[in-house]
Amino acid sequence: MQHTTSKFEFRLLAQSGAARRGEILTPRGVIRTPAFMPVGTTATVKALYTDQVKAAGADIILGNTYHLMLRPGAERIHRLGGLHSFMRWEGPILTDSGGFQVMSLATIRKITEAGAEFSSHIDGSRHMLSPERSIEIQCLLGSDIQMQFDECIELPAERSEVERAMQLSLRWAERSKSAFEEARDNGLAGDGQALFAIVQGGTDAALRRVSAEALVDMDFPGYAIGGLAVGEGHELMLSTLEATLPFLPKAKPRYLMGVGTPLDLIEAVARGVDMFDCVMPTRNGRHGLAFTWNGRVNLRNARHAEDTSPLDPESSCPAARDYSRAYLHHLVKSGEYLGAMLISWANTWFYQELMQAMRDAISEGRFDEWAAETKARLGETPSKGTA
Amino acid sequence: MQHTTSKFEFRLLAQSGAARRGEILTPRGVIRTPAFMPVGTTATVKALYTDQVKAAGADIILGNTYHLMLRPGAERIHRLGGLHSFMRWEGPILTDSGGFQVMSLATIRKITEAGAEFSSHIDGSRHMLSPERSIEIQCLLGSDIQMQFDECIELPAERSEVERAMQLSLRWAERSKSAFEEARDNGLAGDGQALFAIVQGGTDAALRRVSAEALVDMDFPGYAIGGLAVGEGHELMLSTLEATLPFLPKAKPRYLMGVGTPLDLIEAVARGVDMFDCVMPTRNGRHGLAFTWNGRVNLRNARHAEDTSPLDPESSCPAARDYSRAYLHHLVKSGEYLGAMLISWANTWFYQELMQAMRDAISEGRFDEWAAETKARLGETPSKGTA
Repeated sequence: MQHTTSKFEFRLLAQSGAARRGEILTPRGVIRTPAFMPVGTTATVKALYTDQVKAAGADIILGNTYHLMLRPGAERIHRLGGLHSFMRWEGPILTDSGGFQVMSLATIRKITEAGAEFSSHIDGSRHMLSPERSIEIQCLLGSDIQMQFDECIELPAERSEVERAMQLSLRWAERSKSAFEEARDNGLAGDGQALFAIVQGGTDAALRRVSAEALVDMDFPGYAIGGLAVGEGHELMLSTLEATLPFLPKAKPRYLMGVGTPLDLIEAVARGVDMFDCVMPTRNGRHGLAFTWNGRVNLRNARHAEDTSPLDPESSCPAARDYSRAYLHHLVKSGEYLGAMLISWANTWFYQELMQAMRDAISEGRFDEWAAETKARLGETPSKGTA
Repeated sequence: MQHTTSKFEFRLLAQSGAARRGEILTPRGVIRTPAFMPVGTTATVKALYTDQVKAAGADIILGNTYHLMLRPGAERIHRLGGLHSFMRWEGPILTDSGGFQVMSLATIRKITEAGAEFSSHIDGSRHMLSPERSIEIQCLLGSDIQMQFDECIELPAERSEVERAMQLSLRWAERSKSAFEEARDNGLAGDGQALFAIVQGGTDAALRRVSAEALVDMDFPGYAIGGLAVGEGHELMLSTLEATLPFLPKAKPRYLMGVGTPLDLIEAVARGVDMFDCVMPTRNGRHGLAFTWNGRVNLRNARHAEDTSPLDPESSCPAARDYSRAYLHHLVKSGEYLGAMLISWANTWFYQELMQAMRDAISEGRFDEWAAETKARLGETPSKGTA
C-alpha cells in the first residue's frame, strides 16, 4: 500500500537485534527498508525495462550524476522534464554526487578546496564539480534523495591523506547543505526531497567517528557510509561499519554506498544499515553470472549446456522460472542480448526478493536465525581485501 | 481466431489485383498472409522477448539452420525438446536450409554434387551440409516449414555459372524432397510440417522459368524465390519476381527470401508474394534506425536530442508510443542495451502493422490505392543495385 506525503520522512517499524525495518515516505512513493536500489547509471537500469525493475519489487533506483551531467547533460534533462519522466520511472530516485565517479572514471583531475576538475571519459571535455554544482545538477535532474559532494580516495592510503579527504568532505557537506537549502528557498527543490550526508574516514575507526559526529551535528535527514567496497574486503568493511553506525542517529536512514554481494547485504543489515546500491546484479547479469536462492550460477559453464531445469525454481521471476539453463547458457555463449536481458532481470529480482525476505525476518523478530540459514544456503564466500 | 489442423494447408481468402490474402494452417497455429517472419537466427529474435514478438502480431518466426547446427547444435536442440520449447516460441517456425549462410558466412568452402564443405565462422571447425543433412537438421530442430538445400551464388555472375548453380539446386531439391519424405516415413516429420522448394536462376528470366517449372513438376507445398536481395537492387528484384511468379501455382504460398525494406514488401505483395523474412527491423534497431508510419527515423541524429515527441504516435507499440525521441537518442548515443531493445521492438511491431494493413487492404479490394498512399507517406527510396 502506497502512502502519500508532501514531506520526506523516515519511520522505524521494527527491529530484530540491530537489524531495522522501516519506510521512507516521499511524495513519489514509499521506500521499504532495508532497500536495495538498482543502479540506472545513464538513465537506464542496464538491459531492463523500468516495468521489470518495478515488478521485481524495487521502490527506488539510483542515477549517476557524473554520467548524466556528461551525457545527455543535466540542463538538457531538466528541459526535457526531469529524470523521472525522461526514463519513465515514477518512483523515487536517488542520485549520487558525482564524487566517486570523478575519482574512478575521469582523467586529468585536480582536487582543490573549490571542487574537482576533470576530463570526461567520453570525449575528454573539461568539467568542474563542486558541492554547489553537484547540488545544482541533482536539482536539475529532480532526484528525490540527493547526496553531498565528497572526496572518495583510493585505499589503502596514509592516515594523513584519509584525514585530509575526510575533513575536506566535511567542509563540502556544509557547502552542499547550504546549496540544497538555497535551492529549496528558490523552489528548485521541495520539502519532499532530501539531502544525505556521507561519512568518510577510510577504515580508520577514529576518523569515521569524527566524520559521523560532525555530520550529525549538521543535522541531515539521512546518512551514508561512503568510501567502502573499494577493495578493503568484507571483514574490514564490517568492522568499519561497526565503528561508524553507533554514532549515527537511530531515527535517520543509513545508506551503505556501492554495496554489495548478498553476504555483504545480510551482514550490513544485521548491523543496522537501511539502504544499498550496487551494479552487481546487472553487471554480473551481462557476464552470465546469476544469483539464485541456491547460490551463484555461472551460466557460461559447459555443465549447463543440456540442463533443462530453470535457473531458480524458487524465484517468482519469469526469467529465472520459465527458461532452461541450457537456453541461458546458449544465449550467453552466443553473446546474445537476450542472455544479458534475462540474467540481469533474474538477478535484479533476486536482490529484491532477498531484501523482502530480510524485511519479513525483521518484522517477525527472527533476523539472526534467518541470516544464519540463508548464508548457509547461498554459500557466499566473504570477499578478501585487495587494497 | 486460431484454427486447428493436423495438416499443412494453404487457403487463398481474397485478392486485390495480383496481391493475395490467405492463411497457412499448421498444427502450431495459423499464419496470416502476406506474412513477415522476424528472424531468430540463433534461437532468439535479437533483443526481444518472444512475448513481444507475438504481441507485435507475428504468427511465425525464422530460425537459421547454419547458425543453430554450429551452436548449440541440432542434435543438442533435439535432445532438449526441439527449437520451439528451447526458445519459448509456441507458434510455427520456418528454418532455412543453411545454404545461403554457408555462402555468406563460412570460409574454406567447397561445393560438390554431394553438398557444401565449410569451416565454422565461430571456431573454424569443419562441417558438411548436404540436402540430406540439411533436412535431418531441420527435422531435429522440429521446424514447421523447412527449406530445400540450395546453392545461392553471388551476383553478378556469368550466365553459365548461374545456370550451373540453378541446375544443381534442382537436383538438390529432388534429394531434399526424398529426404523429407523419408523423415516423414520414419516419424521424424509429421503431416503438419512442410518442405518448400526454392526457385533460383539469378536475374535471368529464362533460367528462373526453367527452375520454377521444374520445381512445380516436383509438387512442393510451397515455393520460395531465392537468390534475390543480394545487391541486385529494387528494380531488378521486381522484374525477376515478375518473370518468376507466373510460373508458380496460385494455390501454393510464395515466399521471397531475405526481403526487405517496407517498399520491397509492398511491391512484392502487389505482385503476388505471400511470405517474407528479413533481419532489417532488428539489425537496424540495434543501429538506431527506426521504421515509422512517417518514414525512417535515424535516432543517432542530433536533431532528436531534445525532441519530447514519441517515435511514432500512430503505432500501438509501447516502444514507439511511450518513450521520447530524446530518450531513444540518448540511449543510442550511449550504446545502451535498452536503445537496441526499444527500437528493435518498435521496428518489429511496425513491420507487423504494415503486413496487417496490407492484409486489410487486400480484403477490402483496395490494395493498389493503399499502396500508392503508403509509399508516398513512407517516402522510401528504391535501393540501387550494388552487384
